Amino acid sequence: MNLNIALLPGDGIGPEVLNQAVKCLQAVEETFNHTFVYKEAPVGAIAIDKTGNPLPDKTLQLCKDADAVLFGSIGDPKYDNDPKAKVRPEQGLLKLRKELGLYTNVRPVKVFPTLIGKSPLKEEIISGTDFTIYRELTGGIYFGEKKLNEEGTIASDLCEYSEKEISRIAHLAFKAAKNRRNKLTLVDKANVLESSRLWRKVVTKIGESYPEVELDFLFVDNAAMQVILNPNQFDVVLTENLFGDIISDEASVIGGSIGLLASASIGDENALFEPIHGSYPQAKGKDIANPVASILSAAMLLEHFQLFEEAMAIREAVDKALQKGIVTPDLDEKSNFGTNHVGDFIADNIVDND
Amino acid sequence: MNLNIALLPGDGIGPEVLNQAVKCLQAVEETFNHTFVYKEAPVGAIAIDKTGNPLPDKTLQLCKDADAVLFGSIGDPKYDNDPKAKVRPEQGLLKLRKELGLYTNVRPVKVFPTLIGKSPLKEEIISGTDFTIYRELTGGIYFGEKKLNEEGTIASDLCEYSEKEISRIAHLAFKAAKNRRNKLTLVDKANVLESSRLWRKVVTKIGESYPEVELDFLFVDNAAMQVILNPNQFDVVLTENLFGDIISDEASVIGGSIGLLASASIGDENALFEPIHGSYPQAKGKDIANPVASILSAAMLLEHFQLFEEAMAIREAVDKALQKGIVTPDLDEKSNFGTNHVGDFIADNIVDND
Ligand SMILES: [Mg+2]
Ligand SMILES: [Mg+2]
Repeated sequence: MNLNIALLPGDGIGPEVLNQAVKCLQAVEETFNHTFVYKEAPVGAIAIDKTGNPLPDKTLQLCKDADAVLFGSIGDPKYDNDPKAKVRPEQGLLKLRKELGLYTNVRPVKVFPTLIGKSPLKEEIISGTDFTIYRELTGGIYFGEKKLNEEGTIASDLCEYSEKEISRIAHLAFKAAKNRRNKLTLVDKANVLESSRLWRKVVTKIGESYPEVELDFLFVDNAAMQVILNPNQFDVVLTENLFGDIISDEASVIGGSIGLLASASIGDENALFEPIHGSYPQAKGKDIANPVASILSAAMLLEHFQLFEEAMAIREAVDKALQKGIVTPDLDEKSNFGTNHVGDFIADNIVDND
Repeated sequence: MNLNIALLPGDGIGPEVLNQAVKCLQAVEETFNHTFVYKEAPVGAIAIDKTGNPLPDKTLQLCKDADAVLFGSIGDPKYDNDPKAKVRPEQGLLKLRKELGLYTNVRPVKVFPTLIGKSPLKEEIISGTDFTIYRELTGGIYFGEKKLNEEGTIASDLCEYSEKEISRIAHLAFKAAKNRRNKLTLVDKANVLESSRLWRKVVTKIGESYPEVELDFLFVDNAAMQVILNPNQFDVVLTENLFGDIISDEASVIGGSIGLLASASIGDENALFEPIHGSYPQAKGKDIANPVASILSAAMLLEHFQLFEEAMAIREAVDKALQKGIVTPDLDEKSNFGTNHVGDFIADNIVDND
């Protein structure tokens, strides 16, 4: 397969972890006979430094022309801690998601057996957890009309959803469930909210086209409990923007190792893949940043293009590194392995099992 | 002190657990020389059976005339599982909260040392956790304008808050923090929502009148993580209705024993105290229901009237029961102690330490 991949290293540890992901993609090219073309462009604080704009037009155009975007991380204390800053690095990512029409955020939640001791949950609860959250990313209350009366004493936000906004992400979630364990849980608050009742109606209807997928429903307050009490009940979780923000962040910590979590943001024409961790500026250039989340975001990119074997080859190489203790110090304080060494090990262990 | 207390036993295990709470209040009357007058009235399914109305006018009037309401639980499968039911038991509680103007829900989250093994979290994380959530209960998106267009394809809910709605609960929360460890955390989403920015502005302003209380802020998605990662950082948590629903339910499970959690719903003229557990109809009349949450809701009632010593006497008697293993089978499957026996033990151990 030929793929044009836009590389947006961004700020902080972004460039160094992204480098390891590219190493792994190159190993996949070689092992499985694909041709990936990489083009790099600035985004975030580094783009503000160069052009005054966190998402320069050239960067945006490169992303639009690419098949997919591989993203590092964004943010720099120089701008984040300056209350007078008019442009902020994060605006680059928000604008990019919007311009590319990335309406679905995908967050896998998986517990690595070798790291289970790091979970805040007891082993018997978290063992075997493996689910994926599909969060609507461009609608709902974060983007609805905001009002503040003249006196500044009454404020409001509107949560609005259309059938179209719900159905496009619902189809993605049902398809994901078909490729997994055939279970989809819609998280809503349909006993109270009109928008949730529309979600339930539309998702129920679409579910009829996926008869092999078992559909169930959970109110968001109950979901917040179930993520802790019994995370193994979940396969694919589908939810709106605000609920997805809360539940996916809650779920991100139950595995105990946020440095391993990747995410995808998907639209009809494009897709972006990135680690969920931030730019961690204190670690920049020290060769200590954990590259695994970035490497796993490359695996998600491959899965997006149906390259399942290739993605599995990356995942297996990651598992091998974790099992052998080839990890950065955040996972094992006695480890002396750096970002580059871990990346090299994983790339070197990408093999075709066929 | 003289207090008129309305007793609303409700459905399922409500009457039997409420009986134990009353036993304890009677022991407090005797030990500390108070006079409490109890008047009972039906609510929920049992009120529907009798009158067709889950909150009969007489019950509402009794509550309005009382100083406080002690509530059992509500709900019966006969109505809950009937999609054609026009009146539902739960409507009784919702209407009661509204009619009494109960705008603040208070949910203490506390880990009992003897039950720490039941928590889904590891002991080193949950040990010592003791915080209280103040959730706004009558505003926000649950009560805002709901819309559905004629075609049924676009739905919306409005989240609106006024300065007045925020300030009245904020004062209660700051006062609670003053009586505790002087820390208040406002949970909002002020980086995105206009209503959250109003919360932050109003709460910050009110905080100036409580200089001894340290005020900090947490975005709701981060709060959902922190409840699991480091629950000991919290003292008093203040938040709006929807966020409070999610965060307080999430927090309710980290102690591992939902059967021990009480709550208060407070307004300017009245207050209602109840266990957070449901009516558990399968256990009705079997003398197996755990009465501790109901008994602790009576302790919250006493605290509401500044009877701190009296409340502490109840809490110490509860601790003694837990330490001695005088508990119902839900906490210890080998235990043969029933609802009544546990209630008697706790009431008998209420002593004045002075
Ligand atoms: Mg978030
Ligand atoms: Mg709830």
